[in-house]
Amino acid sequence: MKYYVGIDVGGTSVKMGLFNDKDELLERISFNTRTVEYIVDDIYENINKLFASKNLLLDDLKGIGIGFPGHVDGSTGTVVYSNNLVAHNFEIVKLLKQKIDTFIRISNDANVAALGEYHFGRGKEFKNIVFVTLGTGIGGGIIIDGHMLEGKNGAGAEIGHMVISTNGQLCSCGRRGCFETYASATALIRNARVAMINNPTSLLWKYAKKPEDLDGMGFFDALAENDKVATIVFEQYIEDLADGLTNLANIFRPDAIILGGGISYRGDSLMEPLQNRLAKMIYGGQWNARVELMVSTLKNDAGIYGAYAMCTKLK
Amino acid sequence: MKYYVGIDVGGTSVKMGLFNDKDELLERISFNTRTVEYIVDDIYENINKLFASKNLLLDDLKGIGIGFPGHVDGSTGTVVYSNNLVAHNFEIVKLLKQKIDTFIRISNDANVAALGEYHFGRGKEFKNIVFVTLGTGIGGGIIIDGHMLEGKNGAGAEIGHMVISTNGQLCSCGRRGCFETYASATALIRNARVAMINNPTSLLWKYAKKPEDLDGMGFFDALAENDKVATIVFEQYIEDLADGLTNLANIFRPDAIILGGGISYRGDSLMEPLQNRLAKMIYGGQWNARVELMVSTLKNDAGIYGAYAMCTKLK
Repeated sequence: MKYYVGIDVGGTSVKMGLFNDKDELLERISFNTRTVEYIVDDIYENINKLFASKNLLLDDLKGIGIGFPGHVDGSTGTVVYSNNLVAHNFEIVKLLKQKIDTFIRISNDANVAALGEYHFGRGKEFKNIVFVTLGTGIGGGIIIDGHMLEGKNGAGAEIGHMVISTNGQLCSCGRRGCFETYASATALIRNARVAMINNPTSLLWKYAKKPEDLDGMGFFDALAENDKVATIVFEQYIEDLADGLTNLANIFRPDAIILGGGISYRGDSLMEPLQNRLAKMIYGGQWNARVELMVSTLKNDAGIYGAYAMCTKLK
Repeated sequence: MKYYVGIDVGGTSVKMGLFNDKDELLERISFNTRTVEYIVDDIYENINKLFASKNLLLDDLKGIGIGFPGHVDGSTGTVVYSNNLVAHNFEIVKLLKQKIDTFIRISNDANVAALGEYHFGRGKEFKNIVFVTLGTGIGGGIIIDGHMLEGKNGAGAEIGHMVISTNGQLCSCGRRGCFETYASATALIRNARVAMINNPTSLLWKYAKKPEDLDGMGFFDALAENDKVATIVFEQYIEDLADGLTNLANIFRPDAIILGGGISYRGDSLMEPLQNRLAKMIYGGQWNARVELMVSTLKNDAGIYGAYAMCTKLK
């Protein structure tokens, strides 16, 4: 039998999964992320552990897929730039191949997670999907007819840096009004903190002594108590998020847009108004092909499944 | 030898080209667009004329490609909705097949023009392109690795309906702040007319007795005379156009964005500031993969070439 390893490199931990060629996840392992100079050794060591745990021979390892945060050029196997891991033009595929000579494929973590959802998660039934992760920023992965949209040198799918509000909030990328300055998890909490300062009677003060202490948990607790300020902040957030998602729906008209990241698990309070707004604002409205809005089902496993899929399913 | 017909259906005329399987355009013909109930007969008649003019037999016709304005579903061969030709769920492929039983493929006119540029025009040297037409609205055609991005039921690539300014100008689609309300040819002239009203000493008054008489020619003449008002209007136009193009560059990171439509032929006065702004604003800036900004070379012929390419080149 043939075996594959799917690797999801994150800022705090690296998750790995051992798969057989029947799409079965046989074993998992994870380790803390150290700086980039250790990553190849750490990966190699943990691949050995994975294979040993199942009494398998490394000879039967037929492919390694890697999702890596930042700008990754799959065509050269290079991490062009990663803020999280302080990597710059890091030739990870070449270095890893010196230890294990097998098929190795790398891409940006959001692209890889999208491929995971496409083959094994919420996207299984669809031909085309756009995957959107709401976190510190907004990440995107676009799968069209089984192909990952990676763009020139792997620099594509930067959907968080689509301006939705000319002359809007300043983004870390240098432009104003990027989607992620309005609709990331960070943006939601920032807006809630500002609203807190302006509204001394808000219930938000129950959940944080100082605005800078407010976190997502506290915000959603205040929202669940029907705090007026939290409600207004959340309604505005949904409008802005819907604006960006509607843009993506008009540009790609995928079968579905799949949301990932902590906020996406808030359930109907988020998804219902969002789907309604999307259905209303999408080009052609109800007369045109509907785009489904869904929540990731693989959640934190999307990365390892997608990394495995890069070895066996990628067109 | 095998022969193909590429058809570009427009609001005022239908252009047709006869091609052989060596990519050679042998003959052209065009006729005035009548309402949609005549179009199949008119196309059939003109295909016969094209073949007769070269003493060819219809038996050697191996494919017909059609670019059609509006929302077109290539998978069913149906014009779902076309404002220009007042068509609704018009099964053009089925009807034409009843007259000529050959391969027939239809898509939206901007998708088809993009495919033409990709195989025979400015996009020939590239793997991925985004084609943007600046006209009454903004049309888009996206070619990724030889595939047309058509979206579910052919409703994708509506790049003109990407909001770049939340709560901005009202668009005909019902949303506010769509790209085309800022960066179409119509938007430029509308903005110039408003500026005219507000500036009684502008040279724009030399070129139009009333604001509603101002056209593109008059606007660019006043601009060439360095009229201050026209200059300010044009600078703002370039900023807004660059905003939308930068979004597309970040989302797709194509090798090139190719512009079509009358405004795109204005030369360096348009393209230079536009390319500079794109290079400055694109995600990752100069450290990231450059996206070239170019002008269509096939111009009005992109449609018939693209329609032909749908028969022979489409992946």
